[in-house]
Amino acid sequence: MSDQTKPILVAVVGVGLVGAEFVDQLLSLPKEYFQIVALVSSDATLFAADGLAIDRSSWKGVYQQSKGPTIISALAAELYALVNAGRKVVLVDNTAAETVAHMYPNFLTGGVNVITPNKKAFSSDQELFDSILRATAQGGARFLNEATVGAGLPIISTLKDLVATGDTVLFIQYILPSENKLSRTQVTKIEGVFSGTMSYIFNNFSTPSSGGPSFSSVVKAARDNGYTEPHPGDDLNGADVARKLTILSRMIPVLREALPQGYKSVDTRSLVPPALEGLETGDQFMSRLPDFDGEFEAVRAEAQHENKVLRYVGVIDVEKRVVKASLEKYENAHPFATSLGGSDNIIMFHTKRYGTRPLIVQGAGAGAAVTAMGVLSDLLKLANR
Amino acid sequence: MSDQTKPILVAVVGVGLVGAEFVDQLLSLPKEYFQIVALVSSDATLFAADGLAIDRSSWKGVYQQSKGPTIISALAAELYALVNAGRKVVLVDNTAAETVAHMYPNFLTGGVNVITPNKKAFSSDQELFDSILRATAQGGARFLNEATVGAGLPIISTLKDLVATGDTVLFIQYILPSENKLSRTQVTKIEGVFSGTMSYIFNNFSTPSSGGPSFSSVVKAARDNGYTEPHPGDDLNGADVARKLTILSRMIPVLREALPQGYKSVDTRSLVPPALEGLETGDQFMSRLPDFDGEFEAVRAEAQHENKVLRYVGVIDVEKRVVKASLEKYENAHPFATSLGGSDNIIMFHTKRYGTRPLIVQGAGAGAAVTAMGVLSDLLKLANR
Repeated sequence: MSDQTKPILVAVVGVGLVGAEFVDQLLSLPKEYFQIVALVSSDATLFAADGLAIDRSSWKGVYQQSKGPTIISALAAELYALVNAGRKVVLVDNTAAETVAHMYPNFLTGGVNVITPNKKAFSSDQELFDSILRATAQGGARFLNEATVGAGLPIISTLKDLVATGDTVLFIQYILPSENKLSRTQVTKIEGVFSGTMSYIFNNFSTPSSGGPSFSSVVKAARDNGYTEPHPGDDLNGADVARKLTILSRMIPVLREALPQGYKSVDTRSLVPPALEGLETGDQFMSRLPDFDGEFEAVRAEAQHENKVLRYVGVIDVEKRVVKASLEKYENAHPFATSLGGSDNIIMFHTKRYGTRPLIVQGAGAGAAVTAMGVLSDLLKLANR
Repeated sequence: MSDQTKPILVAVVGVGLVGAEFVDQLLSLPKEYFQIVALVSSDATLFAADGLAIDRSSWKGVYQQSKGPTIISALAAELYALVNAGRKVVLVDNTAAETVAHMYPNFLTGGVNVITPNKKAFSSDQELFDSILRATAQGGARFLNEATVGAGLPIISTLKDLVATGDTVLFIQYILPSENKLSRTQVTKIEGVFSGTMSYIFNNFSTPSSGGPSFSSVVKAARDNGYTEPHPGDDLNGADVARKLTILSRMIPVLREALPQGYKSVDTRSLVPPALEGLETGDQFMSRLPDFDGEFEAVRAEAQHENKVLRYVGVIDVEKRVVKASLEKYENAHPFATSLGGSDNIIMFHTKRYGTRPLIVQGAGAGAAVTAMGVLSDLLKLANR
């Protein structure tokens, strides 16, 4: 049993855009609830079992002066010692790293709670996901991952509520389809825009007016605004959408084991030009992407000729067991073309209780501030237990 | 400290439309988590300290055979005894009764948690609300009221997350205004459809096509579908919207004490004809409402003449400290006229983090199944603590 009267100890791994925003937001809360015991990135580590002596104005300076190798296993040992001393400990993983994700089962077995916007652990092989569930059951620690889908939007929590209260989820889609007034039995194809990054890119690249900016310039703007992964190919390959579809699918009992290889089992259209596959850095990728502007322009022109726009969509059809991510064309008057702006997600939950009028959550689905908010709201939920 | 290994004990007050649906949903969950110890309505009471011997198929029959006076104070004494015996006890109030609402401070002080879709306690005088907050702090018991606003939609929890994580809520509105692309500083008037009942009534009464069904026939249909309070005047007087606005306003620190008389402090337009004010029963009200169809028809005709529709809207403008509920006219092409269906709520949160693109939650905001779901999801949150 952990001591409920002492502050929750927080180890922060990853202090990039989201991580730095998270630390800022956390340090703005009253100090009696939380204490940061570790700040870790790939090139520096700060650790103090009794809490780092930092505040909102000083932490970046303190952190930048520290250097040293990052040894996650050493950090783990320190955190287990704190758990064994009766403290409630949370690892907040703000990285997108596979290596950290693969350590969740160990952390959870050791009693360290895990909160993260990192999709990797929940959308990879069934085996890793199952080992996380087992570790949670054994160690008594919890994982919370609201920010893995829709950033700060209440998507994971809403799906949890629907499933836990016994509603029957029929399908999940990501924008208002023009067919939304058809009864459920008539709906043959449900789809939607799901990724904040893809939303931003196609809202700007493909509009009802003719022509428009080049594809690479739009991707560059998205990257400059912090809406893409460091390597934009990680968004354009559709894997981000496929991972989110996997995370949501695994929360629905009848779909739980439908994606054995995780996001790789999702039928996914990649927008990365084959010639650019395997480029290591985002900078390399961005420098060569303009070579393919003509190809994207041709696809856009074809759509415009049909009075349509391009949108990258995702769908989970529970009844038909269909989970897919793809690039599609939509009429200029279609809500896919008219309703979206910025990096908006629109997630629609069609359920038995909600009947023909779905439950809809819409809003910014990417960006450091709203992602960090999703992580912090999970931390507050853990503190309320 | 309550015993975490034993089932949570649930006392259900009110077994009308929402209450019966709630009991059905609760009895569908695994028995090890919850035990119903009381079923109480105005004309019957069932109580068993070790749990009622009921299941999903039998409970209505068992309940209908029981008769006896309802003495809430006697129930309270039984529940305090269970708390003192170390059990976690929850009062689920599915009524709309002031009398029950006024007992929350006692229940909370006695350690009994309160979960409810009943808006009364949270939207009346500041004094009652403050006494609830004090009782929560003293007794250690919690109140959860997600279903008081938007039924099963994640409205209260979303606003809690926004406020708790330090976001600045600028305003809350209830449908997409045509001015939504203006920057915040240019927005002078924000408004929206908020009540599921009012949404249903005006979506059906006032459409872009000329003419339409009579006002009283639409109210009757809403009542028959369970979308109104037993007395439809309780919806048409705007108090329901004003109460929801009060509940949300009190969650925002700078507005917390802005409504000292609760919903009565909200600038509210009543749609109850003055001649029908004070009628005791819903049936009396419904029998005389057709006398006023001509008046509502005249207002609709005036709007149609201007190519507009009527919508009952609500607004909280945090910056301007404006909280109001009113009937307004909107262009036929306005989203107020085109986006809504059924008894949909659309709630938009404009915040600093979400910037010019608000966080939007939309879906059915009335009806027994989705209201009961909101109550049950609160109960599951309490169980997870």
